[in-house]
Amino acid sequence: MSDFPLDGTETRENFAWFLQMPTRWIDNDSYGHLNNAKYYTFFENVIMTYLEHHCQLDTHSGPIRCFTAENGCRYHQALKYPQPVDVGLRVAKIGNSSVRYEMGLFAEDTDSVAATGFVLDVYVDAQTERPVRVPDNFRSALQRCMKSD
Amino acid sequence: MSDFPLDGTETRENFAWFLQMPTRWIDNDSYGHLNNAKYYTFFENVIMTYLEHHCQLDTHSGPIRCFTAENGCRYHQALKYPQPVDVGLRVAKIGNSSVRYEMGLFAEDTDSVAATGFVLDVYVDAQTERPVRVPDNFRSALQRCMKSD
Amino acid sequence: MSDFPLDGTETRENFAWFLQMPTRWIDNDSYGHLNNAKYYTFFENVIMTYLEHHCQLDTHSGPIRCFTAENGCRYHQALKYPQPVDVGLRVAKIGNSSVRYEMGLFAEDTDSVAATGFVLDVYVDAQTERPVRVPDNFRSALQRCMKSD
Amino acid sequence: MSDFPLDGTETRENFAWFLQMPTRWIDNDSYGHLNNAKYYTFFENVIMTYLEHHCQLDTHSGPIRCFTAENGCRYHQALKYPQPVDVGLRVAKIGNSSVRYEMGLFAEDTDSVAATGFVLDVYVDAQTERPVRVPDNFRSALQRCMKSD
Repeated sequence: MSDFPLDGTETRENFAWFLQMPTRWIDNDSYGHLNNAKYYTFFENVIMTYLEHHCQLDTHSGPIRCFTAENGCRYHQALKYPQPVDVGLRVAKIGNSSVRYEMGLFAEDTDSVAATGFVLDVYVDAQTERPVRVPDNFRSALQRCMKSD
Repeated sequence: MSDFPLDGTETRENFAWFLQMPTRWIDNDSYGHLNNAKYYTFFENVIMTYLEHHCQLDTHSGPIRCFTAENGCRYHQALKYPQPVDVGLRVAKIGNSSVRYEMGLFAEDTDSVAATGFVLDVYVDAQTERPVRVPDNFRSALQRCMKSD
Repeated sequence: MSDFPLDGTETRENFAWFLQMPTRWIDNDSYGHLNNAKYYTFFENVIMTYLEHHCQLDTHSGPIRCFTAENGCRYHQALKYPQPVDVGLRVAKIGNSSVRYEMGLFAEDTDSVAATGFVLDVYVDAQTERPVRVPDNFRSALQRCMKSD
Repeated sequence: MSDFPLDGTETRENFAWFLQMPTRWIDNDSYGHLNNAKYYTFFENVIMTYLEHHCQLDTHSGPIRCFTAENGCRYHQALKYPQPVDVGLRVAKIGNSSVRYEMGLFAEDTDSVAATGFVLDVYVDAQTERPVRVPDNFRSALQRCMKSD
Protein backbone atom coordinates (compact mmCIF):
# COMPACT_ATOMS: atom_id res chain seq x y z
CA MET A 1 0.00 0.00 0.00
CA SER A 2 1.21 3.49 -0.68
CA ASP A 3 2.28 5.66 2.19
CA PHE A 4 0.59 8.76 0.93
CA PRO A 5 -1.40 10.61 3.58
CA LEU A 6 -4.73 10.54 1.71
CA ASP A 7 -5.70 13.73 3.48
CA GLY A 8 -5.87 17.46 2.83
CA THR A 9 -2.11 17.71 2.26
CA GLU A 10 -2.19 15.69 -0.96
CA THR A 11 -1.08 17.56 -4.08
CA ARG A 12 -1.62 17.09 -7.79
CA GLU A 13 1.94 15.72 -8.06
CA ASN A 14 0.94 12.75 -5.90
CA PHE A 15 -1.35 11.38 -8.61
CA ALA A 16 -0.28 9.60 -11.77
CA TRP A 17 -3.18 10.15 -14.17
CA PHE A 18 -5.96 12.70 -14.43
CA LEU A 19 -9.44 12.76 -15.91
CA GLN A 20 -11.37 16.00 -16.05
CA MET A 21 -15.07 15.47 -15.42
CA PRO A 22 -17.66 18.18 -16.07
CA THR A 23 -20.21 18.50 -13.31
CA ARG A 24 -23.97 18.41 -13.81
CA TRP A 25 -26.64 20.57 -12.23
CA ILE A 26 -28.07 17.62 -10.35
CA ASP A 27 -24.69 16.69 -8.88
CA ASN A 28 -25.33 19.54 -6.46
CA ASP A 29 -27.77 18.90 -3.66
CA SER A 30 -29.95 21.45 -1.90
CA TYR A 31 -26.99 22.82 0.02
CA GLY A 32 -25.50 23.99 -3.28
CA HIS A 33 -22.48 21.66 -3.26
CA LEU A 34 -21.73 18.35 -4.92
CA ASN A 35 -23.49 15.67 -2.93
CA ASN A 36 -21.12 13.26 -1.17
CA ALA A 37 -22.42 10.20 -3.03
CA LYS A 38 -21.40 11.78 -6.35
CA TYR A 39 -17.74 11.69 -5.36
CA TYR A 40 -17.92 7.91 -5.55
CA THR A 41 -19.23 8.19 -9.08
CA PHE A 42 -16.16 10.25 -9.94
CA PHE A 43 -13.92 7.65 -8.30
CA GLU A 44 -15.61 4.88 -10.27
CA ASN A 45 -15.36 6.76 -13.54
CA VAL A 46 -11.68 7.62 -13.31
CA ILE A 47 -10.83 3.98 -12.58
CA MET A 48 -13.00 2.61 -15.38
CA THR A 49 -11.76 5.17 -17.86
CA TYR A 50 -8.13 4.40 -17.03
CA LEU A 51 -8.76 0.69 -17.50
CA GLU A 52 -10.68 1.24 -20.74
CA HIS A 53 -7.90 3.39 -22.18
CA HIS A 54 -4.91 1.41 -20.95
CA CYS A 55 -6.11 -2.18 -20.47
CA GLN A 56 -8.95 -2.46 -23.00
CA LEU A 57 -11.45 -3.10 -20.22
CA ASP A 58 -14.81 -3.79 -21.89
CA THR A 59 -17.42 -3.26 -19.19
CA HIS A 60 -20.24 -4.49 -21.44
CA SER A 61 -19.01 -7.80 -22.80
CA GLY A 62 -15.46 -8.38 -21.58
CA PRO A 63 -14.41 -11.38 -19.44
CA ILE A 64 -13.52 -9.28 -16.38
CA ARG A 65 -15.60 -7.19 -14.02
CA CYS A 66 -14.41 -5.05 -11.13
CA PHE A 67 -16.55 -5.26 -8.00
CA THR A 68 -16.00 -2.80 -5.19
CA ALA A 69 -15.19 -4.40 -1.82
CA GLU A 70 -14.57 -1.21 0.13
CA ASN A 71 -14.28 2.50 -0.45
CA GLY A 72 -14.05 5.72 1.49
CA CYS A 73 -13.72 9.46 1.11
CA ARG A 74 -12.55 12.48 3.08
CA TYR A 75 -14.05 15.84 2.18
CA HIS A 76 -11.67 18.78 2.60
CA GLN A 77 -13.29 21.58 0.60
CA ALA A 78 -16.65 21.85 -1.12
CA LEU A 79 -16.91 21.34 -4.86
CA LYS A 80 -19.84 22.58 -6.87
CA TYR A 81 -21.46 22.78 -10.28
CA PRO A 82 -20.70 24.29 -12.78
CA GLN A 83 -17.01 23.89 -12.00
CA PRO A 84 -15.36 20.85 -13.66
CA VAL A 85 -13.45 18.49 -11.40
CA ASP A 86 -9.97 17.16 -12.08
CA VAL A 87 -9.86 13.61 -10.77
CA GLY A 88 -6.38 12.34 -9.99
CA LEU A 89 -5.67 8.62 -9.81
CA ARG A 90 -2.84 6.48 -8.49
CA VAL A 91 -2.63 2.74 -7.97
CA ALA A 92 -1.63 2.05 -4.37
CA LYS A 93 -1.43 -1.74 -4.28
CA ILE A 94 -1.84 -4.61 -6.75
CA GLY A 95 -2.78 -7.87 -5.05
CA ASN A 96 -3.61 -11.25 -6.49
CA SER A 97 -7.21 -10.48 -7.39
CA SER A 98 -7.62 -7.04 -5.88
CA VAL A 99 -6.35 -3.54 -6.58
CA ARG A 100 -6.37 -0.53 -4.29
CA TYR A 101 -6.80 2.82 -6.04
CA GLU A 102 -6.38 6.23 -4.43
CA MET A 103 -7.91 9.40 -5.77
CA GLY A 104 -7.68 13.13 -5.26
CA LEU A 105 -10.32 15.57 -6.49
CA PHE A 106 -9.30 19.10 -7.42
CA ALA A 107 -11.40 22.00 -8.56
CA GLU A 108 -10.20 23.18 -11.96
CA ASP A 109 -7.26 25.60 -11.69
CA THR A 110 -6.90 24.87 -7.98
CA ASP A 111 -3.93 23.23 -6.32
CA SER A 112 -5.36 22.35 -2.92
CA VAL A 113 -7.12 19.01 -2.81
CA ALA A 114 -10.89 19.11 -2.32
CA ALA A 115 -11.37 15.43 -1.48
CA THR A 116 -9.29 12.29 -1.14
CA GLY A 117 -10.47 8.73 -1.29
CA PHE A 118 -9.76 5.10 -2.04
CA VAL A 119 -11.46 2.18 -3.73
CA LEU A 120 -10.57 -1.46 -3.17
CA ASP A 121 -11.77 -3.45 -6.19
CA VAL A 122 -11.87 -7.20 -6.63
CA TYR A 123 -11.47 -8.54 -10.15
CA VAL A 124 -14.07 -11.19 -10.92
CA ASP A 125 -14.98 -13.42 -13.83
CA ALA A 126 -17.90 -11.84 -15.70
CA GLN A 127 -19.79 -15.15 -15.86
CA THR A 128 -19.22 -16.71 -12.45
CA GLU A 129 -18.63 -13.46 -10.53
CA ARG A 130 -15.83 -15.33 -8.67
CA PRO A 131 -12.48 -13.62 -8.03
CA VAL A 132 -9.79 -14.11 -10.66
CA ARG A 133 -6.13 -13.13 -10.80
CA VAL A 134 -5.63 -9.61 -12.12
CA PRO A 135 -4.66 -10.30 -15.77
CA ASP A 136 -1.09 -9.56 -16.89
CA ASN A 137 -2.03 -6.87 -19.38
CA PHE A 138 -3.86 -5.07 -16.58
CA ARG A 139 -0.87 -5.45 -14.24
CA SER A 140 1.56 -3.66 -16.48
CA ALA A 141 -0.82 -0.75 -17.04
CA LEU A 142 -1.65 -0.60 -13.34
CA GLN A 143 2.03 -0.51 -12.42
CA ARG A 144 2.54 2.49 -14.67
CA CYS A 145 -0.09 4.25 -12.57
CA MET A 146 1.78 3.78 -9.28
CA LYS A 147 3.57 6.66 -7.54
CA SER A 148 6.27 6.51 -4.91
CA ASP A 149 6.75 9.14 -2.23
CA MET B 1 -42.59 27.47 -32.25
CA SER B 2 -40.19 25.95 -34.74
CA ASP B 3 -41.54 23.63 -37.38
CA PHE B 4 -38.79 21.10 -37.03
CA PRO B 5 -40.05 17.52 -36.89
CA LEU B 6 -38.45 16.65 -33.52
CA ASP B 7 -38.27 13.05 -34.61
CA GLY B 8 -35.76 10.56 -35.96
CA THR B 9 -35.18 12.61 -39.15
CA GLU B 10 -33.51 15.49 -37.30
CA THR B 11 -29.88 16.14 -38.29
CA ARG B 12 -26.98 17.89 -36.64
CA GLU B 13 -27.51 20.86 -38.98
CA ASN B 14 -30.90 21.50 -37.35
CA PHE B 15 -29.26 22.52 -34.08
CA ALA B 16 -27.50 25.79 -33.32
CA TRP B 17 -25.15 24.96 -30.46
CA PHE B 18 -23.53 21.79 -29.17
CA LEU B 19 -22.20 20.58 -25.87
CA GLN B 20 -20.34 17.30 -25.64
CA MET B 21 -21.11 15.46 -22.42
CA PRO B 22 -19.10 12.44 -21.27
CA THR B 23 -21.25 9.62 -19.96
CA ARG B 24 -20.81 7.94 -16.59
CA TRP B 25 -20.99 4.26 -15.71
CA ILE B 26 -24.13 4.80 -13.64
CA ASP B 27 -25.91 6.58 -16.50
CA ASN B 28 -26.47 3.09 -17.89
CA ASP B 29 -29.16 1.01 -16.25
CA SER B 30 -29.30 -2.77 -16.00
CA TYR B 31 -30.25 -3.07 -19.67
CA GLY B 32 -26.85 -1.65 -20.57
CA HIS B 33 -28.13 1.60 -22.11
CA LEU B 34 -28.46 5.14 -20.81
CA ASN B 35 -31.54 5.26 -18.62
CA ASN B 36 -34.34 7.44 -20.01
CA ALA B 37 -34.32 9.82 -17.02
CA LYS B 38 -30.68 10.71 -17.74
CA TYR B 39 -31.63 12.23 -21.09
CA TYR B 40 -33.44 14.95 -19.17
CA THR B 41 -30.26 15.66 -17.24
CA PHE B 42 -28.50 16.17 -20.56
CA PHE B 43 -31.30 18.49 -21.74
CA GLU B 44 -31.04 20.48 -18.53
CA ASN B 45 -27.28 20.74 -18.73
CA VAL B 46 -27.08 21.94 -22.32
CA ILE B 47 -29.62 24.69 -21.59
CA MET B 48 -27.91 25.81 -18.38
CA THR B 49 -24.47 25.73 -19.93
CA TYR B 50 -25.64 27.80 -22.90
CA LEU B 51 -27.18 30.37 -20.56
CA GLU B 52 -24.11 30.43 -18.32
CA HIS B 53 -21.79 31.00 -21.27
CA HIS B 54 -23.94 33.43 -23.25
CA CYS B 55 -26.21 35.19 -20.74
CA GLN B 56 -24.14 35.04 -17.53
CA LEU B 57 -26.80 32.92 -15.85
CA ASP B 58 -25.72 32.41 -12.23
CA THR B 59 -27.68 29.45 -10.95
CA HIS B 60 -26.36 29.89 -7.40
CA SER B 61 -26.96 33.54 -6.60
CA GLY B 62 -28.36 35.24 -9.70
CA PRO B 63 -31.76 37.03 -9.78
CA ILE B 64 -33.30 34.59 -12.30
CA ARG B 65 -34.18 30.92 -12.08
CA CYS B 66 -35.53 28.68 -14.83
CA PHE B 67 -38.27 26.29 -13.74
CA THR B 68 -39.39 23.53 -16.07
CA ALA B 69 -43.10 23.60 -16.92
CA GLU B 70 -43.11 20.74 -19.39
CA ASN B 71 -40.66 18.47 -21.17
CA GLY B 72 -40.64 15.38 -23.33
CA CYS B 73 -38.35 13.01 -25.20
CA ARG B 74 -38.47 10.55 -28.08
CA TYR B 75 -35.92 7.75 -28.09
CA HIS B 76 -34.78 6.70 -31.56
CA GLN B 77 -31.59 4.73 -30.92
CA ALA B 78 -29.93 3.54 -27.73
CA LEU B 79 -27.01 5.48 -26.28
CA LYS B 80 -24.61 3.96 -23.82
CA TYR B 81 -21.58 4.50 -21.63
CA PRO B 82 -18.67 4.94 -22.29
CA GLN B 83 -19.59 6.81 -25.48
CA PRO B 84 -19.79 10.62 -25.05
CA VAL B 85 -22.99 12.30 -26.22
CA ASP B 86 -23.15 15.40 -28.42
CA VAL B 87 -26.12 17.42 -27.23
CA GLY B 88 -27.51 19.80 -29.86
CA LEU B 89 -29.62 22.78 -28.81
CA ARG B 90 -31.91 25.20 -30.60
CA VAL B 91 -34.32 27.77 -29.21
CA ALA B 92 -37.76 27.17 -30.70
CA LYS B 93 -39.82 29.96 -29.17
CA ILE B 94 -39.22 32.94 -26.90
CA GLY B 95 -42.36 34.04 -25.06
CA ASN B 96 -42.90 36.71 -22.45
CA SER B 97 -41.68 34.67 -19.50
CA SER B 98 -41.15 31.28 -21.10
CA VAL B 99 -38.74 29.74 -23.57
CA ARG B 100 -39.09 26.51 -25.51
CA TYR B 101 -35.86 24.66 -26.21
CA GLU B 102 -35.45 21.70 -28.53
CA MET B 103 -32.63 19.21 -28.31
CA GLY B 104 -31.09 16.42 -30.33
CA LEU B 105 -28.73 13.83 -28.86
CA PHE B 106 -26.11 12.23 -31.08
CA ALA B 107 -23.59 9.54 -30.30
CA GLU B 108 -20.09 10.88 -30.97
CA ASP B 109 -19.10 10.54 -34.66
CA THR B 110 -22.66 9.58 -35.60
CA ASP B 111 -24.98 11.57 -37.83
CA SER B 112 -28.30 9.92 -37.10
CA VAL B 113 -30.11 11.36 -34.13
CA ALA B 114 -30.42 9.09 -31.07
CA ALA B 115 -33.06 11.12 -29.22
CA THR B 116 -35.03 14.32 -29.66
CA GLY B 117 -36.76 16.34 -27.00
CA PHE B 118 -38.03 19.66 -25.78
CA VAL B 119 -38.08 21.65 -22.56
CA LEU B 120 -40.48 24.49 -21.81
CA ASP B 121 -38.94 26.66 -19.12
CA VAL B 122 -40.52 29.51 -17.21
CA TYR B 123 -38.22 32.29 -16.02
CA VAL B 124 -38.92 33.20 -12.41
CA ASP B 125 -37.61 35.65 -9.85
CA ALA B 126 -35.14 33.82 -7.59
CA GLN B 127 -36.70 35.28 -4.43
CA THR B 128 -40.44 35.17 -5.11
CA GLU B 129 -40.38 32.25 -7.59
CA ARG B 130 -42.99 34.21 -9.62
CA PRO B 131 -42.70 34.46 -13.43
CA VAL B 132 -40.76 37.42 -14.81
CA ARG B 133 -40.19 38.69 -18.32
CA VAL B 134 -37.21 37.02 -19.99
CA PRO B 135 -34.47 39.68 -19.54
CA ASP B 136 -33.20 41.51 -22.62
CA ASN B 137 -29.66 40.21 -22.38
CA PHE B 138 -31.06 36.68 -22.36
CA ARG B 139 -33.30 37.44 -25.35
CA SER B 140 -30.49 38.44 -27.65
CA ALA B 141 -28.45 35.36 -26.79
CA LEU B 142 -31.52 33.13 -27.12
CA GLN B 143 -32.30 34.58 -30.55
CA ARG B 144 -28.81 33.70 -31.75
CA CYS B 145 -29.64 30.10 -30.85
CA MET B 146 -32.72 29.91 -33.09
CA LYS B 147 -32.71 28.03 -36.39
CA SER B 148 -35.09 28.36 -39.31
CA ASP B 149 -36.01 25.47 -41.57
CA MET C 1 -55.79 6.40 -25.99
CA SER C 2 -57.58 7.73 -22.96
CA ASP C 3 -59.29 11.09 -23.17
CA PHE C 4 -58.13 12.27 -19.81
CA PRO C 5 -56.72 15.80 -19.84
CA LEU C 6 -53.27 14.91 -18.44
CA ASP C 7 -53.05 18.39 -16.99
CA GLY C 8 -53.49 20.17 -13.68
CA THR C 9 -57.18 19.19 -13.43
CA GLU C 10 -56.46 15.48 -12.99
CA THR C 11 -57.62 13.99 -9.69
CA ARG C 12 -56.69 10.90 -7.71
CA GLU C 13 -59.91 9.24 -8.93
CA ASN C 14 -58.57 9.31 -12.49
CA PHE C 15 -55.87 6.79 -11.65
CA ALA C 16 -56.31 3.06 -11.15
CA TRP C 17 -53.34 2.05 -9.01
CA PHE C 18 -51.05 3.87 -6.60
CA LEU C 19 -47.54 3.39 -5.33
CA GLN C 20 -46.19 5.56 -2.54
CA MET C 21 -42.53 6.40 -3.03
CA PRO C 22 -40.42 8.00 -0.30
CA THR C 23 -38.21 10.78 -1.55
CA ARG C 24 -34.48 11.01 -0.98
CA TRP C 25 -32.39 14.03 -0.06
CA ILE C 26 -30.61 13.97 -3.42
CA ASP C 27 -33.90 13.94 -5.34
CA ASN C 28 -33.99 17.66 -4.56
CA ASP C 29 -31.73 19.89 -6.60
CA SER C 30 -30.18 23.19 -5.53
CA TYR C 31 -33.51 24.97 -5.90
CA GLY C 32 -34.88 22.85 -3.06
CA HIS C 33 -37.44 20.92 -5.16
CA LEU C 34 -37.43 17.50 -6.74
CA ASN C 35 -35.41 17.74 -9.94
CA ASN C 36 -37.45 17.24 -13.12
CA ALA C 37 -35.47 14.18 -14.21
CA LYS C 38 -36.46 12.36 -11.00
CA TYR C 39 -40.13 12.43 -12.01
CA TYR C 40 -39.27 10.04 -14.81
CA THR C 41 -37.70 7.69 -12.29
CA PHE C 42 -41.02 7.72 -10.41
CA PHE C 43 -42.90 7.03 -13.66
CA GLU C 44 -40.57 4.14 -14.43
CA ASN C 45 -40.86 2.67 -10.96
CA VAL C 46 -44.64 2.71 -10.75
CA ILE C 47 -44.89 0.93 -14.12
CA MET C 48 -42.29 -1.68 -13.24
CA THR C 49 -43.74 -2.30 -9.80
CA TYR C 50 -47.24 -2.76 -11.24
CA LEU C 51 -45.90 -5.25 -13.79
CA GLU C 52 -43.85 -7.10 -11.17
CA HIS C 53 -46.83 -7.42 -8.84
CA HIS C 54 -49.52 -8.18 -11.42
CA CYS C 55 -47.75 -9.76 -14.41
CA GLN C 56 -44.69 -11.38 -12.80
CA LEU C 57 -42.35 -9.16 -14.81
CA ASP C 58 -38.79 -10.27 -14.03
CA THR C 59 -36.55 -7.41 -15.07
CA HIS C 60 -33.38 -9.38 -14.38
CA SER C 61 -33.89 -12.67 -16.21
CA GLY C 62 -37.36 -12.69 -17.72
CA PRO C 63 -38.04 -13.04 -21.49
CA ILE C 64 -39.56 -9.55 -21.83
CA ARG C 65 -38.08 -6.07 -21.50
CA CYS C 66 -39.87 -2.75 -21.73
CA PHE C 67 -38.02 -0.05 -23.66
CA THR C 68 -39.24 3.52 -23.54
CA ALA C 69 -40.05 5.02 -26.96
CA GLU C 70 -41.40 8.35 -25.75
CA ASN C 71 -42.28 10.09 -22.52
CA GLY C 72 -43.26 13.49 -21.24
CA CYS C 73 -44.22 15.40 -18.12
CA ARG C 74 -46.06 18.56 -17.11
CA TYR C 75 -45.13 20.15 -13.80
CA HIS C 76 -48.03 21.81 -11.98
CA GLN C 77 -46.75 22.24 -8.42
CA ALA C 78 -43.37 21.67 -6.84
CA LEU C 79 -42.70 18.48 -4.89
CA LYS C 80 -39.87 18.19 -2.42
CA TYR C 81 -38.02 15.95 0.01
CA PRO C 82 -38.84 14.78 2.66
CA GLN C 83 -42.46 14.49 1.55
CA PRO C 84 -43.37 11.07 0.08
CA VAL C 85 -45.00 11.06 -3.34
CA ASP C 86 -48.14 9.11 -4.25
CA VAL C 87 -47.71 7.96 -7.83
CA GLY C 88 -50.99 7.20 -9.60
CA LEU C 89 -51.02 4.95 -12.67
CA ARG C 90 -53.52 4.19 -15.42
CA VAL C 91 -53.09 2.31 -18.66
CA ALA C 92 -54.26 4.52 -21.53
CA LYS C 93 -53.78 2.26 -24.56
CA ILE C 94 -52.66 -1.32 -25.21
CA GLY C 95 -51.31 -1.80 -28.73
CA ASN C 96 -49.77 -4.80 -30.40
CA SER C 97 -46.30 -4.40 -28.93
CA SER C 98 -46.64 -1.07 -27.15
CA VAL C 99 -48.45 0.26 -24.09
CA ARG C 100 -49.17 3.86 -23.17
CA TYR C 101 -49.20 4.60 -19.44
CA GLU C 102 -50.36 7.83 -17.84
CA MET C 103 -49.31 8.98 -14.40
CA GLY C 104 -50.25 11.57 -11.81
CA LEU C 105 -47.99 12.57 -8.93
CA PHE C 106 -49.52 13.80 -5.70
CA ALA C 107 -47.89 15.04 -2.54
CA GLU C 108 -48.99 12.88 0.39
CA ASP C 109 -52.32 14.03 1.85
CA THR C 110 -52.88 16.41 -1.08
CA ASP C 111 -55.63 16.18 -3.66
CA SER C 112 -54.37 18.55 -6.32
CA VAL C 113 -52.06 16.93 -8.83
CA ALA C 114 -48.42 18.05 -8.72
CA ALA C 115 -47.37 16.57 -12.07
CA THR C 116 -48.87 14.55 -14.91
CA GLY C 117 -47.06 12.51 -17.50
CA PHE C 118 -47.05 9.62 -19.90
CA VAL C 119 -44.72 6.84 -20.97
CA LEU C 120 -44.97 4.91 -24.22
CA ASP C 121 -43.20 1.60 -23.79
CA VAL C 122 -42.38 -1.00 -26.42
CA TYR C 123 -42.21 -4.60 -25.30
CA VAL C 124 -39.14 -6.35 -26.66
CA ASP C 125 -37.60 -9.79 -26.52
CA ALA C 126 -34.86 -9.77 -23.87
CA GLN C 127 -32.39 -11.55 -26.19
CA THR C 128 -32.97 -9.94 -29.56
CA GLU C 129 -34.28 -6.58 -28.28
CA ARG C 130 -36.85 -6.74 -31.14
CA PRO C 131 -40.51 -5.83 -30.50
CA VAL C 132 -42.83 -8.65 -29.47
CA ARG C 133 -46.57 -8.83 -28.94
CA VAL C 134 -47.58 -7.84 -25.42
CA PRO C 135 -48.09 -11.27 -23.77
CA ASP C 136 -51.63 -12.32 -22.84
CA ASN C 137 -50.98 -12.45 -19.10
CA PHE C 138 -49.74 -8.88 -19.27
CA ARG C 139 -52.80 -7.81 -21.31
CA SER C 140 -55.33 -8.89 -18.73
CA ALA C 141 -53.47 -7.17 -15.90
CA LEU C 142 -52.99 -4.05 -18.01
CA GLN C 143 -56.71 -3.92 -18.85
CA ARG C 144 -57.53 -3.97 -15.14
CA CYS C 145 -55.44 -0.81 -14.84
CA MET C 146 -57.48 1.14 -17.43
CA LYS C 147 -59.92 3.88 -16.43
CA SER C 148 -62.78 5.37 -18.45
CA ASP C 149 -63.95 8.97 -18.11
CA MET D 1 -16.22 5.48 19.16
CA SER D 2 -18.11 2.20 19.28
CA ASP D 3 -16.15 -1.01 19.26
CA PHE D 4 -18.43 -2.76 16.85
CA PRO D 5 -16.56 -4.57 14.07
CA LEU D 6 -18.29 -2.76 11.18
CA ASP D 7 -17.70 -5.82 9.04
CA GLY D 8 -19.61 -8.84 7.73
CA THR D 9 -20.25 -10.17 11.24
CA GLU D 10 -22.57 -7.31 12.20
CA THR D 11 -26.16 -8.32 12.99
CA ARG D 12 -29.48 -6.50 13.07
CA GLU D 13 -29.26 -6.44 16.87
CA ASN D 14 -26.21 -4.18 16.66
CA PHE D 15 -28.28 -1.32 15.27
CA ALA D 16 -30.65 0.91 17.20
CA TRP D 17 -33.06 2.23 14.57
CA PHE D 18 -34.18 1.01 11.17
CA LEU D 19 -35.56 2.64 8.05
CA GLN D 20 -36.80 0.51 5.19
CA MET D 21 -36.00 2.04 1.83
CA PRO D 22 -37.54 0.76 -1.40
CA THR D 23 -35.03 0.45 -4.22
CA ARG D 24 -35.46 1.97 -7.67
CA TRP D 25 -34.70 0.49 -11.06
CA ILE D 26 -31.91 2.98 -11.65
CA ASP D 27 -30.23 2.15 -8.34
CA ASN D 28 -28.94 -0.93 -10.14
CA ASP D 29 -26.09 -0.44 -12.55
CA SER D 30 -25.30 -2.51 -15.64
CA TYR D 31 -24.00 -5.37 -13.52
CA GLY D 32 -27.50 -5.83 -12.13
CA HIS D 33 -26.68 -4.82 -8.53
CA LEU D 34 -27.10 -1.62 -6.56
CA ASN D 35 -24.30 0.69 -7.56
CA ASN D 36 -21.82 1.42 -4.77
CA ALA D 37 -22.52 5.18 -4.77
CA LYS D 38 -26.18 4.51 -3.94
CA TYR D 39 -25.23 3.00 -0.59
CA TYR D 40 -24.11 6.45 0.50
CA THR D 41 -27.52 7.82 -0.44
CA PHE D 42 -29.05 5.22 1.87
CA PHE D 43 -26.62 6.21 4.64
CA GLU D 44 -27.51 9.86 4.17
CA ASN D 45 -31.23 9.19 4.17
CA VAL D 46 -31.32 7.09 7.31
CA ILE D 47 -29.39 9.76 9.22
CA MET D 48 -31.55 12.62 7.96
CA THR D 49 -34.76 10.74 8.56
CA TYR D 50 -33.74 9.90 12.12
CA LEU D 51 -32.89 13.54 12.79
CA GLU D 52 -36.11 14.77 11.18
CA HIS D 53 -38.23 12.39 13.25
CA HIS D 54 -36.39 12.71 16.57
CA CYS D 55 -34.70 16.12 16.55
CA GLN D 56 -36.96 18.17 14.28
CA LEU D 57 -34.12 18.68 11.82
CA ASP D 58 -35.42 20.99 9.07
CA THR D 59 -33.07 20.56 6.13
CA HIS D 60 -34.74 23.33 4.14
CA SER D 61 -34.89 26.26 6.53
CA GLY D 62 -33.55 25.14 9.92
CA PRO D 63 -30.52 26.74 11.64
CA ILE D 64 -28.37 23.59 11.45
CA ARG D 65 -26.86 21.70 8.55
CA CYS D 66 -24.90 18.48 8.63
CA PHE D 67 -21.89 18.38 6.33
CA THR D 68 -20.08 15.11 5.72
CA ALA D 69 -16.38 15.15 6.63
CA GLU D 70 -15.65 11.50 5.95
CA ASN D 71 -17.48 8.32 5.07
CA GLY D 72 -16.78 4.77 4.02
CA CYS D 73 -18.42 1.48 3.15
CA ARG D 74 -17.62 -2.23 3.04
CA TYR D 75 -19.62 -4.38 0.64
CA HIS D 76 -20.25 -7.92 1.89
CA GLN D 77 -23.09 -9.18 -0.31
CA ALA D 78 -24.77 -7.71 -3.37
CA LEU D 79 -28.11 -5.95 -3.01
CA LYS D 80 -30.41 -5.37 -5.95
CA TYR D 81 -33.66 -3.89 -7.15
CA PRO D 82 -36.53 -4.65 -6.64
CA GLN D 83 -35.69 -5.83 -3.12
CA PRO D 84 -36.19 -3.18 -0.40
CA VAL D 85 -33.28 -2.49 1.90
CA ASP D 86 -33.47 -2.30 5.69
CA VAL D 87 -31.04 0.37 6.79
CA GLY D 88 -29.88 0.02 10.39
CA LEU D 89 -28.43 3.01 12.24
CA ARG D 90 -26.46 3.48 15.43
CA VAL D 91 -24.69 6.53 16.78
CA ALA D 92 -21.07 5.62 17.54
CA LYS D 93 -19.68 8.87 18.95
CA ILE D 94 -20.99 12.31 19.79
CA GLY D 95 -18.28 14.98 19.78
CA ASN D 96 -18.46 18.71 20.26
CA SER D 97 -19.55 19.57 16.74
CA SER D 98 -19.31 16.17 15.06
CA VAL D 99 -21.19 12.89 15.19
CA ARG D 100 -20.08 9.51 13.92
CA TYR D 101 -22.87 7.26 12.63
CA GLU D 102 -22.53 3.60 11.73
CA MET D 103 -24.88 1.77 9.41
CA GLY D 104 -25.72 -1.76 8.37
CA LEU D 105 -27.68 -2.60 5.24
CA PHE D 106 -29.78 -5.76 5.15
CA ALA D 107 -31.83 -7.22 2.35
CA GLU D 108 -35.44 -7.56 3.49
CA ASP D 109 -36.03 -10.80 5.43
CA THR D 110 -32.30 -11.48 5.58
CA ASP D 111 -30.19 -11.59 8.71
CA SER D 112 -26.68 -11.43 7.28
CA VAL D 113 -25.44 -7.93 6.70
CA ALA D 114 -24.99 -6.87 3.07
CA ALA D 115 -22.93 -3.74 3.72
CA THR D 116 -21.52 -1.80 6.66
CA GLY D 117 -20.43 1.79 6.72
CA PHE D 118 -19.88 4.98 8.65
CA VAL D 119 -20.46 8.68 8.20
CA LEU D 120 -18.68 11.40 10.16
CA ASP D 121 -20.82 14.53 10.02
CA VAL D 122 -19.94 18.02 11.20
CA TYR D 123 -22.79 20.21 12.42
CA VAL D 124 -22.60 23.69 10.93
CA ASP D 125 -24.56 26.91 11.13
CA ALA D 126 -26.84 27.14 8.10
CA GLN D 127 -25.83 30.74 7.40
CA THR D 128 -22.11 30.81 8.07
CA GLU D 129 -21.44 27.13 7.33
CA ARG D 130 -19.06 27.21 10.35
CA PRO D 131 -19.05 24.33 12.87
CA VAL D 132 -21.36 24.69 15.86
CA ARG D 133 -21.86 22.62 18.99
CA VAL D 134 -24.31 19.78 18.48
CA PRO D 135 -27.51 21.24 20.01
CA ASP D 136 -28.81 19.73 23.25
CA ASN D 137 -32.09 18.49 21.78
CA PHE D 138 -30.07 16.63 19.16
CA ARG D 139 -27.74 15.18 21.81
CA SER D 140 -30.48 13.46 23.77
CA ALA D 141 -32.00 11.92 20.67
CA LEU D 142 -28.57 10.88 19.40
CA GLN D 143 -27.76 9.23 22.73
CA ARG D 144 -30.92 7.14 22.48
CA CYS D 145 -29.54 5.81 19.20
CA MET D 146 -26.30 4.52 20.73
CA LYS D 147 -25.67 0.81 21.30
CA SER D 148 -23.16 -0.85 23.58
CA ASP D 149 -21.51 -4.20 22.86
